[in-house]
Amino acid sequence: MNGKKQPIYPVEPWSVTETSFDTGCNYRNETAFSLSNGYIGTRGTFEEGYDFPENTGLEGNYINGFYESAEIRYGEWNFGFPERSQSLLNLPNLKTTRIFLGGEAFDMRKGVIRDYRRTLDMRSGILTRSLIWESPGGKRARVETQRFVSLAVKHIMVQRVFVTPLNFDGEVRILSVLDADVENHTRAANPLVDYGPFGRTLVPDEISAENDTLFYAGHTANSGMKTACGCFHKLTGAKIAESYETDGLSCRVEYVFQGAATMEKFIVYASSLDSSEDGLSGFARGVLEKAANDGYDALSEEQKARVRSFWETADVEIDGDDAIQQGLRFNLFHLMQSANRDGNAGMGAKGLSGEGYEGHYFWDTEIYVLPVFTHTFPDITKSLLDYRFNTLDAARLRARELGHGKGALYPWRTINGFECSAYLPLGTAQYHINADIAYAFSQYVKVAGDTDYLKEKAAEVLCETARVWADVGCFSEARGGKYCICSVTGPDEYTALVDNNFYTNLMAYGNLWDAADAVRWLEKNDGDAFRALTEKIELSPDEPKQWEKIASEMYLPFDEKEQVYLQDDGFLLRKPWDDSLIPPEKRRLLYENYHPLFIWRQRMAKQADTVLAMLLHSEYFDRETIERHYDYYGKVTLHHSSLSKCVFGIIASLIGKREEAYRCFNESARMDIDDYHGNFYAGIHTANMAGSWLSVVYGFAGLNTGGGKLKLSPFLPEAWRGYRFRLSFGGRRFEISVKKSGCFVRQLSGEPLDITIYGKIYRLDGEGDFIKCANTE
Amino acid sequence: MNGKKQPIYPVEPWSVTETSFDTGCNYRNETAFSLSNGYIGTRGTFEEGYDFPENTGLEGNYINGFYESAEIRYGEWNFGFPERSQSLLNLPNLKTTRIFLGGEAFDMRKGVIRDYRRTLDMRSGILTRSLIWESPGGKRARVETQRFVSLAVKHIMVQRVFVTPLNFDGEVRILSVLDADVENHTRAANPLVDYGPFGRTLVPDEISAENDTLFYAGHTANSGMKTACGCFHKLTGAKIAESYETDGLSCRVEYVFQGAATMEKFIVYASSLDSSEDGLSGFARGVLEKAANDGYDALSEEQKARVRSFWETADVEIDGDDAIQQGLRFNLFHLMQSANRDGNAGMGAKGLSGEGYEGHYFWDTEIYVLPVFTHTFPDITKSLLDYRFNTLDAARLRARELGHGKGALYPWRTINGFECSAYLPLGTAQYHINADIAYAFSQYVKVAGDTDYLKEKAAEVLCETARVWADVGCFSEARGGKYCICSVTGPDEYTALVDNNFYTNLMAYGNLWDAADAVRWLEKNDGDAFRALTEKIELSPDEPKQWEKIASEMYLPFDEKEQVYLQDDGFLLRKPWDDSLIPPEKRRLLYENYHPLFIWRQRMAKQADTVLAMLLHSEYFDRETIERHYDYYGKVTLHHSSLSKCVFGIIASLIGKREEAYRCFNESARMDIDDYHGNFYAGIHTANMAGSWLSVVYGFAGLNTGGGKLKLSPFLPEAWRGYRFRLSFGGRRFEISVKKSGCFVRQLSGEPLDITIYGKIYRLDGEGDFIKCANTE
Repeated sequence: MNGKKQPIYPVEPWSVTETSFDTGCNYRNETAFSLSNGYIGTRGTFEEGYDFPENTGLEGNYINGFYESAEIRYGEWNFGFPERSQSLLNLPNLKTTRIFLGGEAFDMRKGVIRDYRRTLDMRSGILTRSLIWESPGGKRARVETQRFVSLAVKHIMVQRVFVTPLNFDGEVRILSVLDADVENHTRAANPLVDYGPFGRTLVPDEISAENDTLFYAGHTANSGMKTACGCFHKLTGAKIAESYETDGLSCRVEYVFQGAATMEKFIVYASSLDSSEDGLSGFARGVLEKAANDGYDALSEEQKARVRSFWETADVEIDGDDAIQQGLRFNLFHLMQSANRDGNAGMGAKGLSGEGYEGHYFWDTEIYVLPVFTHTFPDITKSLLDYRFNTLDAARLRARELGHGKGALYPWRTINGFECSAYLPLGTAQYHINADIAYAFSQYVKVAGDTDYLKEKAAEVLCETARVWADVGCFSEARGGKYCICSVTGPDEYTALVDNNFYTNLMAYGNLWDAADAVRWLEKNDGDAFRALTEKIELSPDEPKQWEKIASEMYLPFDEKEQVYLQDDGFLLRKPWDDSLIPPEKRRLLYENYHPLFIWRQRMAKQADTVLAMLLHSEYFDRETIERHYDYYGKVTLHHSSLSKCVFGIIASLIGKREEAYRCFNESARMDIDDYHGNFYAGIHTANMAGSWLSVVYGFAGLNTGGGKLKLSPFLPEAWRGYRFRLSFGGRRFEISVKKSGCFVRQLSGEPLDITIYGKIYRLDGEGDFIKCANTE
Repeated sequence: MNGKKQPIYPVEPWSVTETSFDTGCNYRNETAFSLSNGYIGTRGTFEEGYDFPENTGLEGNYINGFYESAEIRYGEWNFGFPERSQSLLNLPNLKTTRIFLGGEAFDMRKGVIRDYRRTLDMRSGILTRSLIWESPGGKRARVETQRFVSLAVKHIMVQRVFVTPLNFDGEVRILSVLDADVENHTRAANPLVDYGPFGRTLVPDEISAENDTLFYAGHTANSGMKTACGCFHKLTGAKIAESYETDGLSCRVEYVFQGAATMEKFIVYASSLDSSEDGLSGFARGVLEKAANDGYDALSEEQKARVRSFWETADVEIDGDDAIQQGLRFNLFHLMQSANRDGNAGMGAKGLSGEGYEGHYFWDTEIYVLPVFTHTFPDITKSLLDYRFNTLDAARLRARELGHGKGALYPWRTINGFECSAYLPLGTAQYHINADIAYAFSQYVKVAGDTDYLKEKAAEVLCETARVWADVGCFSEARGGKYCICSVTGPDEYTALVDNNFYTNLMAYGNLWDAADAVRWLEKNDGDAFRALTEKIELSPDEPKQWEKIASEMYLPFDEKEQVYLQDDGFLLRKPWDDSLIPPEKRRLLYENYHPLFIWRQRMAKQADTVLAMLLHSEYFDRETIERHYDYYGKVTLHHSSLSKCVFGIIASLIGKREEAYRCFNESARMDIDDYHGNFYAGIHTANMAGSWLSVVYGFAGLNTGGGKLKLSPFLPEAWRGYRFRLSFGGRRFEISVKKSGCFVRQLSGEPLDITIYGKIYRLDGEGDFIKCANTE
């Protein structure tokens, strides 16, 4: 993990390229080249539909929020253990497009490949492949493929295939397949889990091949969801025949050409998540017809425009390190792809790029990803928060199951809003999820200045989550009357079921204050909204007072000798950690090699915990305090989670440890593109991807929005000549450029604003106004 | 739970009698009338083999230690989670003996029953039933049955059936059945568990019916064990025909008589646990033949002699309360029945009386049951300790799995010596099992004065268990350099995964001292044994020193304000418990109605925890200290475990709260016979049964063997005229009699001894010598 790795892909600032076909790297590359628009996700598999052995390839096509469930079995069950699993369901595959040169199937595992190149062009959002292939029988042809998942039309994916014979005149056949004989790979991908869906559980209701169209409609066996998908083909070339075939689980159309051929395939995926069940097939067919009518060129132009617009807003330009530039853009591109925009679903810890974590949504989104969108595309933040708001009733029910008479408890991992963690110590016990979600609501409202959202949704979520904090603990005489919270697991998953986890208590503190503040603000500024809320959730006037009291008295474990806040009450009682006792090959995933009790008894942490709390609430801690904790926890943090290094990196920036900050950032920026964790095959790490953006903006540029003010303290990493990014704040947009000569802030839109740079307040008077400060840090 | 319950059975000092047949009480009565000799266990089902609906009856025949295993499935698996279950296996049933009066089957659910009486005669160890039955067709007959499980021949059970026609002359048929179509009821009995064996997993190898013999041999599908069982019939009466029948899973013999008939059935159960697999069938047939040759009368006389001898040693006679007398004897009788005597198996928490807890062995045996045997039949203690010694290698492997480089960690629940708890927080985390077992070894050696056993087995167990304590924790500066133990669960199962559980730490302290003492004693007294041990376990000279250091510095959480030791570090941080918030119908089994996190966050306990530690190590605490803790924890202990009330009762005796002591004892003495917990159907509660003996001997009589001395401080409960019991100590035997007039101690055997009564030392000079003290307490 230490030190730079050799880049896996050539360093290119705007693209990721594979220059040779290697089955050994296939599984990982499928993730790198996965495409998504936050609704459809498809892995970067080949059009030929190779049947790679398990653990070397996984065909995957998903709709965000579309899951199948199965019974979870426990050796011993206890009340409130989730009874049903939820797994992002592997849907029928429509990408398969087999090419035949005469009687020989195009197959890269055979014959000779020349001029191979597969590229994800992050500036266009299109994945292309081109090569010259010579069959074992000596036929040579150029093959080119293109693919994108439309950012303009969420149900649409588009493919194009070019076949150009180079040394023969005979027939070229193209076979397009709809394959519904698909199933999840949950257990194959993760031997630690043992729940469904096992086998194929999508039940076909309709399958047809006719009129250049393959079409499928089906429903899940258990979760009661419906999907419809299909494709339409447009051909160019000397077509001499076509034929259709359908069986129970697949259908196909074969086109025969005399010589060169081009196929455009328009693919639709729709589901009962966002269309009425009755009209689903008709809806899907309609969307497909429109896409085909619009045509490949129009859709691809639209795609490029959307991607261009994304970069105009979200790009972070690095002058001086193309590898970092590439890694950062790779991260931002995948984040952009993964974000659901319709409020019906969240963002999986692995986006829609694979089946890791069963496609579940965790706290990663709220704590790591949403700050990126809040400062670039606040509407995306809003729609991801909408998903949490829309599942508030499920969280209310869960709170009752946990014995809380009032309030809402969000699930540790979920797709449909209900808890589906099958392991209590590292699942439901992570109560901090509640405060994390509340924090994201609160931050969005503050940064976007969106008081309408506060009234409509955020205040309700803040109050309902605060209620659980007000019930879960108690004022303990043994801690001087302070409010203590027992039996929770904090972010650090190498420690479980502790008392007074610092992160949890501090985040609960913030949650309680934010809820009380929200109620006071409504009461003062919008009597109707205030009354509507208090009636809806039966809020008593005493509650906000009680929340404030609890927050004021929140206990935070502290060690006088070291002058550090402790990760939890038991932290100093655990065994001093001796990394050297663990053989190197067992170091990465302790849970696969050591019993949980052994792990929990060591005085170390898997990931940022206390220092993450200090980052999220940096307004309460001075620089020296943060530095002391960074040093203290840095020594015992193993960074076995992808959520860790970036946090330490940002803190390092804040306390002036610029070299360490840069080292952490470097890893974070290229963690996935260089597969630092060795598990990229299972999907992207969205939290760390976001963390690399945060490292630049919160870290290097020192962004701080505490107290509702925009503050910056930028520095320039030594290796760079400069960097530039854009930022949304309070309905305004800014461009920040940092160079050796200083820092330059230009207002791009919105009302005038005072901003603070290196502690000094400057006035920006609206669009076009700018500030230039020499680097006076 | 408070106040006396009406007795279920008539109060009889030496027997338990059912005076009418009631299917509603059948399930519970099957446990009350269960018979065992510690090897064979058989539930008190009827000879007719009624097919009662689930939850109203369970045919069960078991061999101690004979189990089947199946894969345990976990929603999420972690390293070191047990992969295979172990369940005491329900074996072929040989008791079924159907009676036909002409064409009408004897069936108590039909016709008319008169003079019904079923009695467990605790003085003979024989279960009898007699009744007059009139069939729906008007035939009347007297039916009598007798049954016992031989205490003399562990593989043998004997049955006798008498049928006497009262108003007809026709045929009487008796059908004897061997039914191997049997399976466990694990899931039916406990909806919280989800592991096997599912269905019938015993595979028949041989099944035959001929020459008055039914015979079966089979093996388990998974655990690789073999069993052979069979029966031989002796008939009396005018037999006119016999016929045999065999099918794949059962066989039977029918005898036809003209008029009255008697059948004696000799039943054998044997297994590969205690016979070579190859010769198993021959062995079983041989044992069966010998038993039949000996005959019913000889075996039943031997049975009576054995039981008589048991009572001569173990009886506690109560003068003044027949209900208590009956309950106490019921408890002692079932304990005597349940104890394995061959070192191949332990004692299940429910003996061999049912399938509750899958027949697993827990700490109940060592902490509750063994003290009874150590003071009555030390050889039984020794053979139960032998079982632990014989599974030491499994415990060593388990310690490695838990990350301990040296030592042995005994499993929380097991049959074969390997951990099979499927739920970490209330399973493997209960490390105290290690100290409990060590405590039992140590106590046996001290009380029996058996230094040979110390050399041969106990010292090794003490050292190996101590090594885990020396590795699991650390000296923590944050606790003044004291030794802290994190992430364990103590006896109280309403709290899990805590730091510094008082019970655990104090018992570990004892374990460490005892191990160090054992090594020093060997070194001083037996150089060969010392060298053999140090070589065998590679004991370094530093280890005992380190154990002493750790013990000296053991941390015990203490609250200065209340001046009480705390159950664990987090005890005072939990929410004050408010019983009134829990509806009465949900109060008994919180885990079935509340989420574990809710339960763990409450400042209460399911059962005795801190006070149990104080009882086991009462030498370290003065009376005032114990009283303070009794009061403090009495307020927050729910007694939802059968292991709790008896402990509080004994402590109440020690601190002079005699009324409370008597109330607790009363419940303890009659807990099972009056089914206080409502789950007696699933099996006896061995720990509490032992607890009622401890309540008299440790409680009322104030027995204390601390420091290797025999001390007594008897008092007489107000309601009684007197009580008397016998006691083994240091190879000597004594009779203690307590009356209003004073306390009388007579030496029955052995060398002279100084004993202390009410703090005053008396000399007993050997057999026949006695002391009489007026009650001077």
